[in-house]
Amino acid sequence: MTRRVHNFCAGPCILPLEVLEEVQAEIVDYQGAGMSLIEMSHRGGHYDEVHARAKALALEVFGAPEDFDLLFVQGGATLQFAMVPMNLLAPGQKGAYALTGSWARGAFQDAAHYGEVYAAWDGAEEGYRRAPASHEIRLEEGTRYLHITSNETIGGIRFAEWPESPVPLVADMSSDFMSRPIPWPRFDLVYGGVQKNLGPAGMAMVFVRRAILEEAREDLARYLRFDVHQRSNSLFNTPPVFTVYVTGKVLRWMKDQGGLEVIEREAREKAALVYEVIDTSDGYYRCPVEEASRSHMNVVFRLPDEALEKRFLAAADAAELVNLKGHRSVGGCRASLYNAMPRASVEALCEFMRDFRSGRR
Amino acid sequence: MTRRVHNFCAGPCILPLEVLEEVQAEIVDYQGAGMSLIEMSHRGGHYDEVHARAKALALEVFGAPEDFDLLFVQGGATLQFAMVPMNLLAPGQKGAYALTGSWARGAFQDAAHYGEVYAAWDGAEEGYRRAPASHEIRLEEGTRYLHITSNETIGGIRFAEWPESPVPLVADMSSDFMSRPIPWPRFDLVYGGVQKNLGPAGMAMVFVRRAILEEAREDLARYLRFDVHQRSNSLFNTPPVFTVYVTGKVLRWMKDQGGLEVIEREAREKAALVYEVIDTSDGYYRCPVEEASRSHMNVVFRLPDEALEKRFLAAADAAELVNLKGHRSVGGCRASLYNAMPRASVEALCEFMRDFRSGRR
Repeated sequence: MTRRVHNFCAGPCILPLEVLEEVQAEIVDYQGAGMSLIEMSHRGGHYDEVHARAKALALEVFGAPEDFDLLFVQGGATLQFAMVPMNLLAPGQKGAYALTGSWARGAFQDAAHYGEVYAAWDGAEEGYRRAPASHEIRLEEGTRYLHITSNETIGGIRFAEWPESPVPLVADMSSDFMSRPIPWPRFDLVYGGVQKNLGPAGMAMVFVRRAILEEAREDLARYLRFDVHQRSNSLFNTPPVFTVYVTGKVLRWMKDQGGLEVIEREAREKAALVYEVIDTSDGYYRCPVEEASRSHMNVVFRLPDEALEKRFLAAADAAELVNLKGHRSVGGCRASLYNAMPRASVEALCEFMRDFRSGRR
Repeated sequence: MTRRVHNFCAGPCILPLEVLEEVQAEIVDYQGAGMSLIEMSHRGGHYDEVHARAKALALEVFGAPEDFDLLFVQGGATLQFAMVPMNLLAPGQKGAYALTGSWARGAFQDAAHYGEVYAAWDGAEEGYRRAPASHEIRLEEGTRYLHITSNETIGGIRFAEWPESPVPLVADMSSDFMSRPIPWPRFDLVYGGVQKNLGPAGMAMVFVRRAILEEAREDLARYLRFDVHQRSNSLFNTPPVFTVYVTGKVLRWMKDQGGLEVIEREAREKAALVYEVIDTSDGYYRCPVEEASRSHMNVVFRLPDEALEKRFLAAADAAELVNLKGHRSVGGCRASLYNAMPRASVEALCEFMRDFRSGRR
């Protein structure tokens, strides 16, 4: 039996064991072809099938409507910070950004080189403890889109409600991708790196409303144009074959689990287990995030002091509960509970947290 | 025993079997960690080691001097078509491009959006049958760099001699990466996708002269800046973990084979075997490339007519000599003989070609 630790890594992170075992079985000789999939042309029959299946499954599991297409683009969400304004902002148009933490700020900073952008809301003064309500977001005249970060991996914040907005939404969903339904009519574009909820590192998935590609800008290098990727079915250049292949398997696994409805419920329930331990600890564990904005993916918490946090992390590690350290920029602890995280691992964490508090660890 | 066909794919393409088998052994549980490498943080100890080793091996095997650094960037060589002019061309500076075929033209086309560029040589009228001699390349006043494509994958052309140039060279070496020594003092930058000679698809390696990063442009998104990747040791955002990991193993394999000198000699000898069959076929097989510019990586050839080519490809396929079809834009046949291609496969191809010509296949 394969040894598996409880892996709470914030990304890259846990994948379903079944998927890893399938990859292992196929990696040297893919379906009797006498070669590995990673040795094959990306324009050949085997890869075609892998590519088409991953794309179709993603559109299906996400519940994306007909008027959206899906692109696979390398460079992660980070390259999208540039590609979104490059492609969406025509001269005179503005991009609005809701600043909820590190990732939203990154998107905002990069976008500033490719158009006029402004902060429509900024949680900095409050120390990034929550997502804004719709009425708090101030949009200026001439705004093309409102960019939000649906879940802040570092701060452990999420938009529990999608904002109501008079302009189309654009969302970076890297850290809660495929864990909640999307109200598609409000969106022009949804993107995210796949390396948390969906597969190995190496690409972003970009869901884009087809209609916005008709007015595409042509003064960009081809790799940076959404319309080029869309017209070529994400095969404009060599795609990240292995990442697409494994992501397709994870999507199949998600579908087999019952799809988005089940995944969302499990995410909510898994997170609730940990928050309950925090909330019933008489203040021993503290979550700095306002209750309504608490992430279902990244549960951040503090202990009474840093020395205890250090002891907690070491003891957790010894108990095979690994990667619970908070992001280096904020410290503390963080349990990332992405889609492939079994409930048994979350229960093991909860038991450990109770035991640690009561001195039994 | 693992079944292996003779895989002449132009990319992604053949990898050493030993490497695939190592990956298979490690993919579920990496070194007893209780998880896969692709489930681990890119800022953790295991990946750190993989990343550092791949980088150090690449610098060593390529023989890059101290004044060069190496970046891992997603998006393949195609994204570099944009990043090179974005980062290197200051206002008023020009980029010179030697147009030797499809890939050079692609680099030229994309660069035009980010600075003033011009064709310093163009093989179009001759039908892209050769690389230019140094004296044929016309540089204009104010030229920052001369961009060359060291090997044209589709046309089967290479620069047998690196151009002598009064301005620094920039080379796209995607299809002959790590198969020949590089005269580093002439270069400011050398890049290439790894998916032909070095590993699975998913990134470019960019060798960059450190000095040119000191005058880096700051008006670009962070992912598009060489200096950002360099300062962060290619860990500015989540790297393509699996691609780096497998590329590191291929580099180790190359070092074990004897390094660049041996690899180069073998490449020359393997290519010579196929060209000899072509040249001694009384015109039955024809290579459209001028002899001095013949690629050591991609041997392109035609048969007397297209019907014969079709029969040739079908019979080759049946004999487990696969992926010999020429690029869809030019037709004909192409044997790609990248570094991991065993000499035995090349000999099998030569025997097949002789047999086919003499009607024994």
